[in-house]
Amino acid sequence: MKQKLIFTNLVGQALDDLVADLGAPQVVIVADTNTAQFVLPILVNDSKAAAGARIITMKSGDANKNLDELTSLWRQLAAMEATRSTLVVNLGGGVVSDLGGFAAATYKRGMKCVNIPTTVLAAVDASVGGKTGINFNGLKNQLGTFSEPEAAIISTIFFNTLPQQQVLSGYAEMLKHGLLEDEATLGKLLAYSPVYPIFDSASLLPLIEASVGVKARIVEADLTETGLRKALNLGHTIGHALESFSYTRKSPIAHGYAVAWGLVTELVLSHLQLGFPSEELHRFAEYVLHNYGAYEITCDDYPALIAAMRQDKKNTVADQINFTLLEAVGKPKIDCTASPEQIGAALDIYRDLMHLA
Amino acid sequence: MKQKLIFTNLVGQALDDLVADLGAPQVVIVADTNTAQFVLPILVNDSKAAAGARIITMKSGDANKNLDELTSLWRQLAAMEATRSTLVVNLGGGVVSDLGGFAAATYKRGMKCVNIPTTVLAAVDASVGGKTGINFNGLKNQLGTFSEPEAAIISTIFFNTLPQQQVLSGYAEMLKHGLLEDEATLGKLLAYSPVYPIFDSASLLPLIEASVGVKARIVEADLTETGLRKALNLGHTIGHALESFSYTRKSPIAHGYAVAWGLVTELVLSHLQLGFPSEELHRFAEYVLHNYGAYEITCDDYPALIAAMRQDKKNTVADQINFTLLEAVGKPKIDCTASPEQIGAALDIYRDLMHLA
Repeated sequence: MKQKLIFTNLVGQALDDLVADLGAPQVVIVADTNTAQFVLPILVNDSKAAAGARIITMKSGDANKNLDELTSLWRQLAAMEATRSTLVVNLGGGVVSDLGGFAAATYKRGMKCVNIPTTVLAAVDASVGGKTGINFNGLKNQLGTFSEPEAAIISTIFFNTLPQQQVLSGYAEMLKHGLLEDEATLGKLLAYSPVYPIFDSASLLPLIEASVGVKARIVEADLTETGLRKALNLGHTIGHALESFSYTRKSPIAHGYAVAWGLVTELVLSHLQLGFPSEELHRFAEYVLHNYGAYEITCDDYPALIAAMRQDKKNTVADQINFTLLEAVGKPKIDCTASPEQIGAALDIYRDLMHLA
Repeated sequence: MKQKLIFTNLVGQALDDLVADLGAPQVVIVADTNTAQFVLPILVNDSKAAAGARIITMKSGDANKNLDELTSLWRQLAAMEATRSTLVVNLGGGVVSDLGGFAAATYKRGMKCVNIPTTVLAAVDASVGGKTGINFNGLKNQLGTFSEPEAAIISTIFFNTLPQQQVLSGYAEMLKHGLLEDEATLGKLLAYSPVYPIFDSASLLPLIEASVGVKARIVEADLTETGLRKALNLGHTIGHALESFSYTRKSPIAHGYAVAWGLVTELVLSHLQLGFPSEELHRFAEYVLHNYGAYEITCDDYPALIAAMRQDKKNTVADQINFTLLEAVGKPKIDCTASPEQIGAALDIYRDLMHLA
């Protein structure tokens, strides 16, 4: 991995040091309409490089991660007479780094670039792979490159500008990493609550760093995406089903929330099938209930949820529903399956744990 | 260099072997309107993979190496449900491999691709670098990637479909490589005449292979493009000036022809400044006159030509005109300069050698 990962809340200083190290004669910051308004002023205040940078603002949201916005970025880079030595700084969540990274990777056959993630999810994802891209022709990430940025500056100072729900949504992926890693990592995560007003970014940063480490180790151990990396699917079979189901109900839930409830239900399955400790399950379920609340379902919803699980891309054998489960914290078992009856039983227990009727 | 270079006139067989080796489940051939008409039928006749391939046709010519054509390629790949394992075969000159290579490098974050150059220039260029790209916003190759294809299949079997002028134009770059390499390589090139009807592709192939070798060695010895690679500028300072000048005259000459006449004039300068052997100079000038004819200029044109040389991107010091010259065949000297008087004297001798008044 060529990419430098810098964990610091002195983001301005870190950026100025990077610009000096790289000897970049020009800095261009790519922001979206949200980060340009709420995050950029903080950075400009703390960094000479940011204060002197040209700014490119793109429309926010995944729907704008498209060829029109990419073309607009290319045009603006050309209008600024950016060269291969110009440094692109992507200031935002995954949409900004995907689009800004793709523009940087292809303008003049490749400029240097640095990511400054401003969301919890982007910070946790920043460890891995250098994927860039846009949606095209109705398909997600249809066009793109593998191009690692020079560095990612990962901090928690921008999280206070985010909606509470988005912080919790990103935190669910960190909980997953904790479950995959060990008791100590999970324990620290469950002892922390990323909820305003007790939202304490100084103690969140080491948790983010640990979480990035977990993901990076798993991905590096399995670059071909066939084996071990499937561990990262923990919580996602049921999580995705809940998310899809919520769309059919016309009241969509955030991805991370769906993952949190998916983790609870898959820990139940882990308990039933692999003897995952009941005490750990209860502690985890209480944490989720306290921070995320409960997603209401009844047994009438089970057939629709199980149908959604059957649609999952991760299934490799027809009519089998695939799961990653846990024997214990830190002991994932990939390629597990469960019958509709077993899944129904797990959903029953999920409803009990969430105090649903 | 990861790219395989396959020199063979059994192109169909080579392609079928490659497709089998790569285990590609689907093959897509990118051709332009010319190669689709004149070259593709030859390939389809000789290759099962080509016969079973899907075809994407783009408009020919550098003016179409643009975002619209790239978007059209992406759309057609998506319509064919191409995956990351689909093999893209670029069948054409540099425009096709630049555009098809860029599409392949970015579709689903990178497909495999193979180049089958169909012009002399593309065959000789195929050794190097994996540059892909399109023109954008009025600038050449403004967008693109460095992405080496899996292989290039280099043959001479398609050259008979080319206009005579285009063959000679590419051959001028081979002459340059011969001058940079050694007496033996140059001697073989001067003993060959790529002119119909004596156009003999079987003996041209080894000359192409040698030429690719020269360029690959120079480029690999100097990946940073600062030193040795400047040797490849031989003939191009005066060549570019003649080319630009011909545009102002509204009767443009082909790039390779300009290079051939540029080589003659720069060998004259080499003789005057570095003692390049007079006998070699005469032999080379006669070859150029015989195959390319003469480009008519008078001493009234010198100021315009010298002004064009001053505009050359390769000049690094203001008001100095930069050249790569030769002490002898195989002994380039980079970063040479010449005064307007010296250049005028060389142009006088060029006119003598070309039997111009």
